[in-house]
Amino acid sequence: MPDSLPSWRDTATKKAVLDFVGAVTDPKSDAFVPERDRVAVFDNDGTISTEQPYTQLAFMLDRAAVLGKPTTPDELKAGGIPAVLELVAFTHGSISTSDFEAVVRSWIATARHPRFGRSYTAMVYQPMIELLGLLDANGFDCWVFSGGGSDFMRAWAPEVFGIPPHRIIGSSGSVTFEMGDSGPVLMKGTDLKVIDDKEQKPVSIHNAVGQRPIFAAGNTDGDLAMLQWAAGSPYRSFDLVIRHTDADREFAYDTDPVLGAGTAALLAAANAGGWTVVDMAADWETIYAPE
Amino acid sequence: MPDSLPSWRDTATKKAVLDFVGAVTDPKSDAFVPERDRVAVFDNDGTISTEQPYTQLAFMLDRAAVLGKPTTPDELKAGGIPAVLELVAFTHGSISTSDFEAVVRSWIATARHPRFGRSYTAMVYQPMIELLGLLDANGFDCWVFSGGGSDFMRAWAPEVFGIPPHRIIGSSGSVTFEMGDSGPVLMKGTDLKVIDDKEQKPVSIHNAVGQRPIFAAGNTDGDLAMLQWAAGSPYRSFDLVIRHTDADREFAYDTDPVLGAGTAALLAAANAGGWTVVDMAADWETIYAPE
Repeated sequence: MPDSLPSWRDTATKKAVLDFVGAVTDPKSDAFVPERDRVAVFDNDGTISTEQPYTQLAFMLDRAAVLGKPTTPDELKAGGIPAVLELVAFTHGSISTSDFEAVVRSWIATARHPRFGRSYTAMVYQPMIELLGLLDANGFDCWVFSGGGSDFMRAWAPEVFGIPPHRIIGSSGSVTFEMGDSGPVLMKGTDLKVIDDKEQKPVSIHNAVGQRPIFAAGNTDGDLAMLQWAAGSPYRSFDLVIRHTDADREFAYDTDPVLGAGTAALLAAANAGGWTVVDMAADWETIYAPE
Repeated sequence: MPDSLPSWRDTATKKAVLDFVGAVTDPKSDAFVPERDRVAVFDNDGTISTEQPYTQLAFMLDRAAVLGKPTTPDELKAGGIPAVLELVAFTHGSISTSDFEAVVRSWIATARHPRFGRSYTAMVYQPMIELLGLLDANGFDCWVFSGGGSDFMRAWAPEVFGIPPHRIIGSSGSVTFEMGDSGPVLMKGTDLKVIDDKEQKPVSIHNAVGQRPIFAAGNTDGDLAMLQWAAGSPYRSFDLVIRHTDADREFAYDTDPVLGAGTAALLAAANAGGWTVVDMAADWETIYAPE
């Protein structure tokens, strides 16, 4: 049988993933789960996509400059959350949903990652793309629940992740239906309605899927509630935590006092619950596919 | 070829439906639509399910009595919208999502329609169930966008409509993630967050599907924006309007000054746009399948 996870090294981590998929798809196993209940949920930034920097943050800074309000990462950091929300509103609001989609597609076609010089669509973790494919091939519906914006992700992620737009859910702002001169349009507003992080993630899963996941993957405390929700499933479930440990091939901010600060609760829960933890440096043979 | 719409009489209405499906699925047709873009959206009450009374209203009145606060339809009518919202909060809130699902399943297993004596799951229009099946067989993803509650519908409609829970979207209230004694629970609150009606329907379609539909079906002005949104698709699109004209086999409230009042704008738009209109008495050979 061909290796469906060729970018994963033959460690205990890979074995745990394959054992779970084997058990829940084997009709003779006590852990068998009917196909309709095979729901898997993934965080995006830091779990499927590189988050140094966030792809959407790179977009916002470039977009702000195009719109005549250049902002530096340092200015944004100094301004804190209010400055970020203002930048989100300025770069994502007051535009039709179809125009916004075109703007994002155009940006991502040419933007390059500052350190690696690769397209942002090539800054996704090849082992996670393989995992999405493995689950899909085994009757799972894979969904993304991200703090990033639904509309931003849906403009490029479906092709890259192999997941249809409706299964990519993130934060979202107000949208209004308006009758334009050439027919109806949906206009994006400037206020955030749902911030899809922390305890909101399982709520968003309930609203969007209407089923409880049996598989969840994340990398920060913002994903903890989502992983707890999957862990409590009456079915056998699987929680996967991604640790950023590879300074050479990706980034090693896992134990950074600032960047890694938001993982303590997740790692404690993983330890207590026996969840599977990916050490990127040790467990992954390949991080990024050739561009 | 077997007739995929046997409950539809051989009228121009049935022909229009079949012609559309034939055109958008024929790779040699100018109107061909790739399978990934074949999105169809349906209202529920009055479009797929009988709405005299609303199934969910019958549930609420029965549930209120069980919970020790019996309410009559006349009291509810006298109290107006505030009384309805209070009843929704009382009968849908302060309960876990899984307990609520069990309550609805238990109710619908025994409740009977006051006039027809049938189970509410047997009060769906057989021609519309056949239409959902025809579209599904032709590569469409069919979705429901209803003013009714997501959680209420998802407890019974997936089996009846042949649509997975995530493609059944309606109004929804607040939900919170809580750590209970035996693990995490999602608790339904008492405040409505989204009322999935009128201009909200295309917004909900954008949020949940992330694609524009090419087929929409509805029966009141509350569905008008959804049908306009589909009608404006760059692809060839199809809008279907259901008129309740059969007093003997269902109900004839279509032109009732009160009950039918909420259809004037929809019928005007159907007339102006050349949308297809179902006259239930004339177009449907069968309304309800044998129970």
